[in-house]
Amino acid sequence: MRATLMYEAGDVRVEDVPDSVVKEPTDALVRITASCICGSDLWPYASMPSADGPVRMGHEFIGIVEETGSAVTTVKRGDLVVAPFAISDNTCAFCREDLHTSCENAQGGFWDGIPEEGGQAEAVRVPLADGTLVKLPVAADSALVPSLLTLSDVFGTGHHAAVAGGVGEHTRVTVIGDGAVGLLAVLSARLLGAEQIILMGRHQARTDLGRDFGATDVVSARGEEGIETVRDLTGGHGTHVVLECVGAMPAYEQALGIVRPGGVISRVGVPQYEEAPIGFGSLFRHNIRLAGGPAPTRAYIEELMPAILDGSIDPGRVFDATTGLDGVPAGYQDMADRKSLKVLVKP
Amino acid sequence: MRATLMYEAGDVRVEDVPDSVVKEPTDALVRITASCICGSDLWPYASMPSADGPVRMGHEFIGIVEETGSAVTTVKRGDLVVAPFAISDNTCAFCREDLHTSCENAQGGFWDGIPEEGGQAEAVRVPLADGTLVKLPVAADSALVPSLLTLSDVFGTGHHAAVAGGVGEHTRVTVIGDGAVGLLAVLSARLLGAEQIILMGRHQARTDLGRDFGATDVVSARGEEGIETVRDLTGGHGTHVVLECVGAMPAYEQALGIVRPGGVISRVGVPQYEEAPIGFGSLFRHNIRLAGGPAPTRAYIEELMPAILDGSIDPGRVFDATTGLDGVPAGYQDMADRKSLKVLVKP
Repeated sequence: MRATLMYEAGDVRVEDVPDSVVKEPTDALVRITASCICGSDLWPYASMPSADGPVRMGHEFIGIVEETGSAVTTVKRGDLVVAPFAISDNTCAFCREDLHTSCENAQGGFWDGIPEEGGQAEAVRVPLADGTLVKLPVAADSALVPSLLTLSDVFGTGHHAAVAGGVGEHTRVTVIGDGAVGLLAVLSARLLGAEQIILMGRHQARTDLGRDFGATDVVSARGEEGIETVRDLTGGHGTHVVLECVGAMPAYEQALGIVRPGGVISRVGVPQYEEAPIGFGSLFRHNIRLAGGPAPTRAYIEELMPAILDGSIDPGRVFDATTGLDGVPAGYQDMADRKSLKVLVKP
Repeated sequence: MRATLMYEAGDVRVEDVPDSVVKEPTDALVRITASCICGSDLWPYASMPSADGPVRMGHEFIGIVEETGSAVTTVKRGDLVVAPFAISDNTCAFCREDLHTSCENAQGGFWDGIPEEGGQAEAVRVPLADGTLVKLPVAADSALVPSLLTLSDVFGTGHHAAVAGGVGEHTRVTVIGDGAVGLLAVLSARLLGAEQIILMGRHQARTDLGRDFGATDVVSARGEEGIETVRDLTGGHGTHVVLECVGAMPAYEQALGIVRPGGVISRVGVPQYEEAPIGFGSLFRHNIRLAGGPAPTRAYIEELMPAILDGSIDPGRVFDATTGLDGVPAGYQDMADRKSLKVLVKP
């Protein structure tokens, strides 16, 4: 079968690899019908040393179950399913607390911890299939597929930012980042009733989509100028909630500048730093809280799916390009160049 | 009048200073009947350079109102009052959100921002008296005074740790630090219904008091050994809530080691660091949250006072020594040497 491998920064290839097969009784083999490239894939695409490669890529997909292990009971051959970006048994203590990304039985939990498997491929072996996979009530060629595919990562991740930040009615929110996650954090903040949603981003096609998703204000300035602009929009105090959907240190510093005393910075962009300011002068003095982490998107699929199925929301609009597997390397480069917001892959 | 000044680390003196007087219409002049030395006073006592001194000390007191400015309406001459460690108008947007430590109109808010005033003295000018002071329904010689004095800082601060950490029924809590704040965080966690309260401290007289306040377990080991012990006590996962009542980096690192995935580290010890680990390997991977800051003790006084007045709790047990003003310098040294837990001062 064909699959995507990253050899090092800037070097992504689609190659023939051994067919994925069911290995454990809890596995399912899924023939992938829709996959995509993630903003988080761009971090290794920018910096991965060749010593760490080649690695299989992709952690968001929809596909048709082709075979199941003997212990699998919730999905069967022929089902169309979506997989969250983290594997989970959906039964352990952490999963029962809706923290599927810390599942006790998922051996790390992320696709990059599953050797020789990935979502940017023709097929994939899914461990813990009963917990991980969710059956979709549509056909593989449904026009809803792009929106349903966002449940695997970017929509659930944006939603997690908003939920972890405690967004509710009367909340003023700033979203940092106009990538797919940031735009879907805007959508989630709107669904949760936020009163004001300020989107910080400088790519107009993206911020226009952000306005469609519910942004009430767009701030294209960054750094000190961006901070001042947000303060001007909020009576000088900043917003109760800042959804940090980038992961770079300047985004965190920007969040510190615009969060209101007593407010919360909710991070879902994978931090590209380990140490950061959290002392008296940054978080502590004004009781600023810090929240977020890898989104337990599995916990949100059932909650978010009905609004997609009934057409009231269309998170799939974050996909602005579609390619086959052979176009995946160019898709990485287009996303890195910000020519594409998010690339849908049809293997 | 007599007041306490710190000249530099290790050099605290009680000297004659100009009498405090009412200056603003919103001021009250309070004759202090009970004050104390704070664990946070020990940070400058350990490290303050002489160039920063002399500074007036003390931010916790009970006293009798002697004079009020023309705009003061809620307290009057002769009232016994308690002052929180932060000044506030109790009416601004932040105060209405119970975040009195970020009061918009308090010009910084802490006593060290009020020139020539302090609580370790015979008298003090209290700005924003209507917002700051709370009348006490007892006499100045009441046996309840030590417990009521804890409402000014240490009890409210311990309570804030527990509230900001989201302690409730069925919560497992670890408290790091056996100082007065840590012990009163234990008491607050008990009042909020915590299921398990692990107190980390190595001074037995203090941890014994912690058991009286509600600690279910005491762990005297620190660092990796302490972390392992807490994990053993909690089925391997650590506790949902860690109340970090010290402020030193090793305490924060210990908190990282014992907080459960999805849990919260609530800090009320003033951080003696600015940068700290918060990236993928520390907070982010398992959705660990960070909360806390200077406690808005003003917000908690009415809530916590009834249980003191009816005798059901006795937070004043954290005072294990009493002195006059002349004994304050020795009191600092005794607290620095951990001979005294907390020194009550009767000017």
